[in-house]
This record gives sequence, C-alpha cells and structure tokens, in this order.
Amino acid sequence: MSNPFYVKHGPFDIIEILDLLKSKITSKKGYKIIDIKDLVSADDKCITFFHSKRYQEQAKKTKATFCITTDNLKNYLPEHCKPVIVDNVLISTSLVTEKFYPNSTEDEFDKSVNNIEKTNYNNTVNFGKNVLIGDKVQIGSNCLIGHNTILEKNVQIGNNCKIGSNNIIRNTIIRDNVSILDNCVIGKKGFGFFPNKNKNLRYPHIGVVIINENSEIGCGATIDRGSMSNTVIGKNTFLDNQIHIAHNVKIGDNTIIAGQVGIAGSSVIGNNVKIGGQAGISGHLKIGNNVDIGGGSGVIKNIPDNSKVMGYPAKNIREFLRDNK
Amino acid sequence: MSNPFYVKHGPFDIIEILDLLKSKITSKKGYKIIDIKDLVSADDKCITFFHSKRYQEQAKKTKATFCITTDNLKNYLPEHCKPVIVDNVLISTSLVTEKFYPNSTEDEFDKSVNNIEKTNYNNTVNFGKNVLIGDKVQIGSNCLIGHNTILEKNVQIGNNCKIGSNNIIRNTIIRDNVSILDNCVIGKKGFGFFPNKNKNLRYPHIGVVIINENSEIGCGATIDRGSMSNTVIGKNTFLDNQIHIAHNVKIGDNTIIAGQVGIAGSSVIGNNVKIGGQAGISGHLKIGNNVDIGGGSGVIKNIPDNSKVMGYPAKNIREFLRDNK
Amino acid sequence: MSNPFYVKHGPFDIIEILDLLKSKITSKKGYKIIDIKDLVSADDKCITFFHSKRYQEQAKKTKATFCITTDNLKNYLPEHCKPVIVDNVLISTSLVTEKFYPNSTEDEFDKSVNNIEKTNYNNTVNFGKNVLIGDKVQIGSNCLIGHNTILEKNVQIGNNCKIGSNNIIRNTIIRDNVSILDNCVIGKKGFGFFPNKNKNLRYPHIGVVIINENSEIGCGATIDRGSMSNTVIGKNTFLDNQIHIAHNVKIGDNTIIAGQVGIAGSSVIGNNVKIGGQAGISGHLKIGNNVDIGGGSGVIKNIPDNSKVMGYPAKNIREFLRDNK
Repeated sequence: MSNPFYVKHGPFDIIEILDLLKSKITSKKGYKIIDIKDLVSADDKCITFFHSKRYQEQAKKTKATFCITTDNLKNYLPEHCKPVIVDNVLISTSLVTEKFYPNSTEDEFDKSVNNIEKTNYNNTVNFGKNVLIGDKVQIGSNCLIGHNTILEKNVQIGNNCKIGSNNIIRNTIIRDNVSILDNCVIGKKGFGFFPNKNKNLRYPHIGVVIINENSEIGCGATIDRGSMSNTVIGKNTFLDNQIHIAHNVKIGDNTIIAGQVGIAGSSVIGNNVKIGGQAGISGHLKIGNNVDIGGGSGVIKNIPDNSKVMGYPAKNIREFLRDNK
Repeated sequence: MSNPFYVKHGPFDIIEILDLLKSKITSKKGYKIIDIKDLVSADDKCITFFHSKRYQEQAKKTKATFCITTDNLKNYLPEHCKPVIVDNVLISTSLVTEKFYPNSTEDEFDKSVNNIEKTNYNNTVNFGKNVLIGDKVQIGSNCLIGHNTILEKNVQIGNNCKIGSNNIIRNTIIRDNVSILDNCVIGKKGFGFFPNKNKNLRYPHIGVVIINENSEIGCGATIDRGSMSNTVIGKNTFLDNQIHIAHNVKIGDNTIIAGQVGIAGSSVIGNNVKIGGQAGISGHLKIGNNVDIGGGSGVIKNIPDNSKVMGYPAKNIREFLRDNK
Repeated sequence: MSNPFYVKHGPFDIIEILDLLKSKITSKKGYKIIDIKDLVSADDKCITFFHSKRYQEQAKKTKATFCITTDNLKNYLPEHCKPVIVDNVLISTSLVTEKFYPNSTEDEFDKSVNNIEKTNYNNTVNFGKNVLIGDKVQIGSNCLIGHNTILEKNVQIGNNCKIGSNNIIRNTIIRDNVSILDNCVIGKKGFGFFPNKNKNLRYPHIGVVIINENSEIGCGATIDRGSMSNTVIGKNTFLDNQIHIAHNVKIGDNTIIAGQVGIAGSSVIGNNVKIGGQAGISGHLKIGNNVDIGGGSGVIKNIPDNSKVMGYPAKNIREFLRDNK
C-alpha cells in the first residue's frame, strides 16, 4: 500500500520506543526503527507485535528485530528478534503505531475547508450551494459536486464524476466516471480499536478508500477507510442505498450490491458477485467470483467461485430452499 | 400513470429507432412510434420488447407494431408485429426508452435551486436556515421546512406538512398533513439497470414518489421513485427510522413499518399491515391486508390477507415459534 | 427521571380533564390532578390509565384517585380509585398526557437556532461552517463541532467532546470526552404512538437521550429520546455506523455494537456486551452483562449474564453452530 495522504513519522531510536512502553529490556541507543508492521511484513528495521498463539508459525519466521509480546509467547520468537514484554500487546502496539502515524486515529472535522467559490475549482467544476473543499483536494474535468457536500482534505476525484448532495468525503481516491449519490460518509476511520476498560484505544487508520472507474455508490452509504491497508470498490460495481462497507474490505469489478447490505472488516468480495438486500458478510472472509448471495443472508464462512448461497448461516441455495419448503 | 414532471419526447419515425439499434430490418419511413411500452400495454403506435420465453403468452397477444427481440424468440410474435432483432434486448430497450424519456436516468444535483428567501415562498412558508428550492416546486399553506433541506425541482407539497432538516426531495408529490423527519432522500432514481460489462446501463425512471395524507416518514429514509410506474406510500402510514423503500413499491393505508426495514422493488404491501424492525421483503411480492410480519423476517413469497408471519424465510408465526422452541 | 427540558403543565382541576375526555362521571370541582402516571407510579394526586386485563394485578393496587379505563375493566380498580370510562383508553390517555406535556409529541425544526458565530460560543468552541445553535444549548470547554451540524434547543455537551459534521441533535445530554461522528440524528421523538384509523396519535416523548463519558457514536446513527423515561448510552460504549437505538433503550458501559444493529424500544443492554453487525434486538428485553450476540442475530427473548448467543431467533452459540453444520 502506498498512501499518498499520511506521512509516516520516524525513524525512532529503539530506546525511545522502549521508554514509551515502559519496557525493561536493555538495548543500545542508536538502533533506528523505521516502521511497525505485522509479523510477516516486518523486516529487520521494524518492530512487530505478537499477541496470540494463533500466530505462532508466523512468529517463528519473523524478520523483525524487536517484537512487542508477552512473557508466555516470547519463546516462539527466533533468536534475532528481541521480545519487548508488555502487559497488553494490543494496547502497546497502538501506542507505537500512533507514534509512527500520528493523527491517523482521529477524524476531527476538517478546519481547512473553504467554500468552493474561493478555490481554484470555482471555474472548472459544476457545483451546488455551500460546497466545501479542503486542503490537497484534486478534482478532474467535467465533474459535478452537489449541494452541501464536503470534500475534506485528502480527496482525489477523476474526470466525469458526479458527486451528489450532503456527502462527506475524506481520505478517498475516486477514479473516472464514478457516481456518488447523496448523504454518504466515505473515508472515515474504521470501527477498529483495542477494547480497554474505561477508554477504548483506536488502532491507526492510515489506509484510504479507492473507488474505481464507472462505479456507483447509493444514498446513505458509509465506506470506512482501511487501517493498515486500503478499502477498495472495483470497476463498474454498483451499490444501492444504505450500505455499510467496513475498513479494509476489497470488492471486485462488475459486482452488484442491493440495499442495506453490510460487509464487515477485511472481507474480500470477487468480481461479478450479486448480493441481495440486507445480506450481511462477516469479517475476514473471502467471497469468490461469480457468486450469488440471496437477500437477507448471513455469510459466516468463505464462499468459493460460482456458488449460489442463501440463508443464515448462508448455504447452497438449493439446500436452503429444500430445507425451507 | 400520469407523470406531471417528465415530458415524453417523440413521436419518432421507426427508421430513426431502427438506426439507433443498428437493426437491419427494412421498414418504410413515415411510420410514427409514439411510445415504448411492455408487451401488454403497448398499442399499434408503440414499440415493445420481448426478452425471455417466460413472457411468450403475452408476446403472442401484443398489439405493438414493432418488438425488440432476438432471433430465438421472434416466432412467438403475432404476424402484425415486426421483430427488431438485436443482440441484447434489455440494452436496446434502454436505448429506446432513453430516446423517449431523456434525462430520466440521471439524478444530477439540481442547479436550478435558489435560497427560499429569494422565492415566492419567503412569506408563505415557515422555514429554517439554508433551505433550497428548485424549479416548479409547489408548497401548500401552513407548511414547515427545516434547516438545510433541499426541495429539488418537481416537488409538490400539500397543506399542513412538516418537512424536517437535511432532507433531499425530488420528483415527489406529498399530500396534506404529511410529516417527513430528518435526513431523508426521497425521489431519486431506483437501483434498476441492465448489467453490462464495463458500464451498466440504467433503465429510465419516469415515475414519482407519492406520499399520501397523514403519513410520517422517519429519519434517514430512502424512498426511490418508480421506473415505469410510481412508488406510493398510503394514507396514515408511518415509517420508523432508516427504512429503505425501493422503486415501484406500493404501500397501503394505516400501515406501520418499524426501523431498518427494507422493501425491494415493485412489491405491493396492503392496508393495516405491521412490519417489525429489520424485516426485509423481496421484490415483486404481494403482501395482503392486515398482515403482521415479525421483526427480522425475510419475506420471499406472497403473503395472503390476515396472516401473521415470522422467520427467514417467513412462515406462519405459530409454526416459527413452535419450530424454534 | 428528572427532565431538565420539558416543563410539566398543571395542576389541572379534575373537571377540566373530565371535560376533555367527554366523560360523564360527576366529580366535585376543586380536586387538583398534578400528573398522569402508570398504575404503579401514580399517587393520590395523579390520574392513571388501565387498558388491558394483563395489568389487573397492578390495577388492584394503584394509589391513583382517578383511572382512565373501560366499562369491562373498571371492577378491578380499588374503591378509592374512580373509573373514568372512555371508548379508547390509549387515545384518551394521549389527550391527557398532551395536556400535561404540551409540545412533547412534536419535533418541528427549531426556529430558535442561530449561526454559532452570533452566539457566546463563537470564541470558546472550535467549529466548522454553517453550525447552528438553538436556545438553552450548553457546550463545555475544548469541544469541536463540525460543518452543518445543528444543535437544536435542549442540548448539553460536556468537555472535550468531538461532534462531527451534518448532525442534528436535540433533547440530549452529552457527557465529557464523547465523540459523535457524522450524519446522526439524536434526540428526536420515538416511534411510539397509538394506532388510530385515519390519523395515528403520538404518545408524549418527554425523555431525553443521555450519552455518557468516553463513548463514541458512529455515522448515520439514529438515537430516539425516551417517552416517559430516558434513552441512555453507557460509558466507553462504542457504536459503529448506521445503528438505530429506539426510545427508552438503556445500554450499559464498555459495550461494543457493530454496524447496522437495531435495538427496539425499552430494551436494556448490560455492561461489556458485544453485538455483531446487523443483529436486531426486540423491544422490552433485558440483555445481561458480558453477553456476546453474534452478527445477524435476531434476539426475541431475555439473555442472561455471560451468555454467547447467535441465530434467529438467537440461541446458545454452540447450539447454533451445531445445528447449522
């Protein structure tokens, strides 16, 4: 992922990170950490984190030089990787990610916006009343922006796009010929955090939303930006009204999603998929190409290519109809 | 259906339509086509379309003089009806409907709007801040229009209506004593189109939304206008928050619909119906009068008058409760 | 419940109330009624109502001096309680409650609002464009209010709160460190009314919404205020996008609710509860502490502490998974 909007801070001396975590291991000053990544992606300039036995295989092979973990888990790590022992791995991880990516957990309204009439787009965009435009917004040729719409900072819009009224968009890349209808909120941080007594802690959301060519987003959609990756809507993919797309979801091309569908975080949907109204798809699933999901379904496991499913939990549609005669 | 807002174009010479479809049949110039209608509604001045064997009985009896169809289906047509052979009937139909009803597939924001203070309604309506009013909007006596609400062109509002804040309304007829709460989008085109690799094609949406006397529409509703017919909400019918009503749906009188319900396209709901929260109703169904649909139900077939149903798929409520003891 | 916003009218002479109800019982002028309450809460200065045999045990013990009821039910009342016989108890009750609490059934947009720049908060709040502030709004220190947000009358906001853009808030108390994202409608009247041929009658909504410390409300939420009690969101409780919370619902602390969940009126949710996406909870239920409700579930009965449930209707999650292997 290359994120054009968030600037990574650092590098930071490992001593500075150990201080932040109140960790007791000793390490020489001068070792520079350039990023925090997961066990698999981290290289020797990174710190990583390991919070559950489920990831022991990945832990054994990590290339990271430091790893935030617990006393119970530290022995899975390879010798070159020094354990940084903490009480709560996820909370400590959130502290470190926020150090590298400050401001990535907050979505305060954008104070930088100006009325579009006061910007360069006054003459190049066809716009409604009360349109607000933030810093670093780019808008292509032949675009429409409806009334009361707010393009906060970090929005790129291609050519021939039609953005309706009352939308709030931030941290989003919109390709050519995309339509976004009315009342959407696109690009806000996802609902991802470390539950914590008295005050939950967000993890960083440094991803963006990418909406590819010729797609349409219906009224009232919420599409959250990714945390450590992007949220992606494919080409010529159409979303009906009141749809919720959580962070890190990837949807393929030529896919059709009916009203009130919800897709939980990090799920991947293929090409040429049809999803009926009010269906829900759990997080971290893979839905293949050419899949039909019946209206109202609750999908809680992966679905292979070319399947037709329905039900809660979703199963083969013939089975569903037979069981419910 | 008589639509006060969309002007039908034409008549068009059949030669012009055949050119548009790149059809090879020969026909004498001078035959005027006044409209495109379905197999049953079309008369001898119309062109119709026939895309699936399912409609063979209707095809045999059509009165249309021309019919867009395929080589496989043409022999079902009566002798007086000339087949216009195309590769994809629905896409060709969409091209012709757009010729008769241009602009009916788009919902670009209304550039015609003015701040209500600059209109005739400045003295006759009780309004909030930043209210925008489009061309040909009519508002009766004793009405309220809340902050930031946009009444785009083609909206008629009766007497004693209360429209809340942040609504977007277009192509809609609202009768007397109707309340519309906040944050609704009413009258946009429906989610109906011809799937087409690379770029889906809309079919026309020349219907309107009609909301009858004494009804209430909750916050965050989306009510789409009809495609070739209207979307209708009956008298004294109350909708809770976050409800989605798709195009062509007709809802009867004295009906109560709880939060987050979704009704798919072209379904017809009777009078005195109660629908529990989050229930979903598939498209093209008929729900009778005095029906109770339990919360969370997924209705996938017609429901006769006076039934109580629940479940997914919805069945008799006693059966549902017995099966789930 | 002590509601800082609604002023109770009265006391009213019983004669005045009997006139309103066109009741024929005779009573001496001079007896003052101070409130209308349910059978259990009412004391001898109150009028109460009794409309169904289900409440016969409560009726026998009521301390009220007058009771709106029917001829069939009047004999359950104790001797000191005079029956006021009417045709429809609920409609008559709504007439009387509206007399004590006028304006509590309507949510007309707030005409009192002013642009925040013209208020005392111009220098103490960090705000966006087009922010509107109603009468009697209080905002603590170090708060953010986003673009186009409307704080109608009767809103109290604590310190360090972040309110996003395009929100509409009324009749709501927000404690310290609360985040409300974008596009929410908070504090409107609930979907509670007495169904009535031709024109339904609301019952009064004199409750408020209370959102406690450190909580977060996602985009597109609708949270209705209580009718005769409050709607309450606990401390450090996080709501994802497109959630609907009906009137009188109470949610505990440290609870996490995923996208598109709906909770029907008067249900009570415990502390440390997790609710998966698109789950629905029927009205008047009690969900214990430390409960996990799987995504897509439909909960139609009470759930004890420490349970994990899933399904529609929701049952023990192990049972659900076993039944659906």
